Amino acid sequence: MNDTFLKACRGEKTDYTPVWIMRQAGRYLPDYQKVRAKVDFLTLCKTPQLAAEVTFQPVDILKVDAAILFSDILIPIEPMGMKLEFSESKGPILYDPIRSETAILKLRQIKPAEDVPFVAEAIKILTSKLNVPLIGFSGAPFTLATYMIEGGSSKNYVNTKKMMFQTPEIFANLMEKITDTVIGYLQLQVDAGVQAIQVFDSWAGILSPVDFEAYILPYVQKIVSTFKGKLPVIYFAFNGSAMLDKVKLADADVYGIDWRIDISDAISAIGDKGAVQGNLDPCTLLGDRALIKDRVSKVLAGAKGAKGHIFNLGHGILPEIPFENAIEMVKDVHELSSK
Amino acid sequence: MNDTFLKACRGEKTDYTPVWIMRQAGRYLPDYQKVRAKVDFLTLCKTPQLAAEVTFQPVDILKVDAAILFSDILIPIEPMGMKLEFSESKGPILYDPIRSETAILKLRQIKPAEDVPFVAEAIKILTSKLNVPLIGFSGAPFTLATYMIEGGSSKNYVNTKKMMFQTPEIFANLMEKITDTVIGYLQLQVDAGVQAIQVFDSWAGILSPVDFEAYILPYVQKIVSTFKGKLPVIYFAFNGSAMLDKVKLADADVYGIDWRIDISDAISAIGDKGAVQGNLDPCTLLGDRALIKDRVSKVLAGAKGAKGHIFNLGHGILPEIPFENAIEMVKDVHELSSK
Repeated sequence: MNDTFLKACRGEKTDYTPVWIMRQAGRYLPDYQKVRAKVDFLTLCKTPQLAAEVTFQPVDILKVDAAILFSDILIPIEPMGMKLEFSESKGPILYDPIRSETAILKLRQIKPAEDVPFVAEAIKILTSKLNVPLIGFSGAPFTLATYMIEGGSSKNYVNTKKMMFQTPEIFANLMEKITDTVIGYLQLQVDAGVQAIQVFDSWAGILSPVDFEAYILPYVQKIVSTFKGKLPVIYFAFNGSAMLDKVKLADADVYGIDWRIDISDAISAIGDKGAVQGNLDPCTLLGDRALIKDRVSKVLAGAKGAKGHIFNLGHGILPEIPFENAIEMVKDVHELSSK
Repeated sequence: MNDTFLKACRGEKTDYTPVWIMRQAGRYLPDYQKVRAKVDFLTLCKTPQLAAEVTFQPVDILKVDAAILFSDILIPIEPMGMKLEFSESKGPILYDPIRSETAILKLRQIKPAEDVPFVAEAIKILTSKLNVPLIGFSGAPFTLATYMIEGGSSKNYVNTKKMMFQTPEIFANLMEKITDTVIGYLQLQVDAGVQAIQVFDSWAGILSPVDFEAYILPYVQKIVSTFKGKLPVIYFAFNGSAMLDKVKLADADVYGIDWRIDISDAISAIGDKGAVQGNLDPCTLLGDRALIKDRVSKVLAGAKGAKGHIFNLGHGILPEIPFENAIEMVKDVHELSSK
């Protein structure tokens, strides 16, 4: 078992910088496309054999140091009682968005083992075969709340902020329900055998630091403290790079860093509070090999002072990226950091 | 003439903190809606009497300390040879997006006095009547380039970054042409009588600090240095709050700050390089008066150490904001900062 990734998460010395890629099982990979041609996205998430297959692919092809369960952050929302659909053009759609106290009261408490058994099954298939650690994940409560309130993604998140600012108690009720769901959902994954977990707060960055701290940080802290010490917990507050002094209060083991900040500045902000994961602009992989190598070396150099560093992109890899460039990037990280 | 805004831009002492609101002439104002009911958006931009009328409205209604010419950042792109349309649902559309060297070669050098005479005319009407300074503005070269390359707004700006990373010389040609256009366009506004200018880099924040510095900063510097010393120049690199150490190399008089950072941290990053403008989350104005007052006072307190502070939102005001709350915010800024 290659445990370089786990060592870096814990801030231990490693022989080289471990690397994986957010959305590494995705549309940029021809092998993934072949599987996806047969089934729709949600079916792929819910079919353990297939989900396991596409989770394996990038480990094989890219030689990354960790696998991440193929799934979607919205998976635990459906059993809470919302109808979920993925539209090719609009992305996720959640019908009957949550805009009232009544709607929140109607939400179910999920029973993960019954409601999403396919998640545990996929993990069991994977851990029996993988030679790298498997990362489980969940959306963070605020990010899930935005989808539930807006009914999908949104430009300015006006409905979410309306509920947050105008009826903070009602918003808190929703956040509590989602937090319980997230904890149960992650516990299922931990019990099934994942060796690290990542909490994706993809929309944390729509908030000011003062609102982040007041309205959403406590729920993240509750989740992190539930799992801390049991396995490494990664918290990724996307687009939160200008408020890392607040983000680090999550008390995670590792912080995901987007590409909008020099990683050395991110490390200064986080200090010894945790390791960092990131942070190459995914679009750098549209460039040629010289550009990729240059930018990889800059991130590695910037991360020298980190408590631990896991190389990654600053966001999910895009369908437009040539997969050969992703292979190249992983090779660069391994070579340049071994010197 | 109330020159509090100009004094703050220059870092001079003021009796209170001046305030204006990005998009203060906009859909949240019933008076604006009345004018817009008669003409479409582009016609409004191009009709001096009407553009002047909606520019006046918020000065009257909100009692702000500066007016900003009602227009759109894409106005100078049309005479470069692109067909522009505003769709209610999709926002701006630029037909035949620029994706090749040939397309760039075909772009015209604009003659502002002939191509956009309505801009100068609106400014002349305004300066004869306003008792607060009038701000002129332009999109920054990179932001305009993204619209021209993508043909509108975009999710990941893959086409823009493709051109930037794969053919940097061709991308530079485009940036140079746009920079010349922007300088001519701003010069027209200065000649017509605006007393400050703001350069909106609304999409600067899609770049990493290293790419911001390499690919777009030199063009911003060229624009700023053309006008510096003649009148205050405000540079707003939206979503660039985690790279203000690079943004401040623009050498502007004032830096616009979005709401993703504590303003005191922004001031620490900028130091004595300029005054700051911002940075309340526009959605705060969805809240009640107590919340608005609390958040206004927090921004004012955070900005205490600034070389100069102009209060503003961290982004344009939204159609969903009750205009009474904007009036309230302006009042709060004036009252709380006079104490």
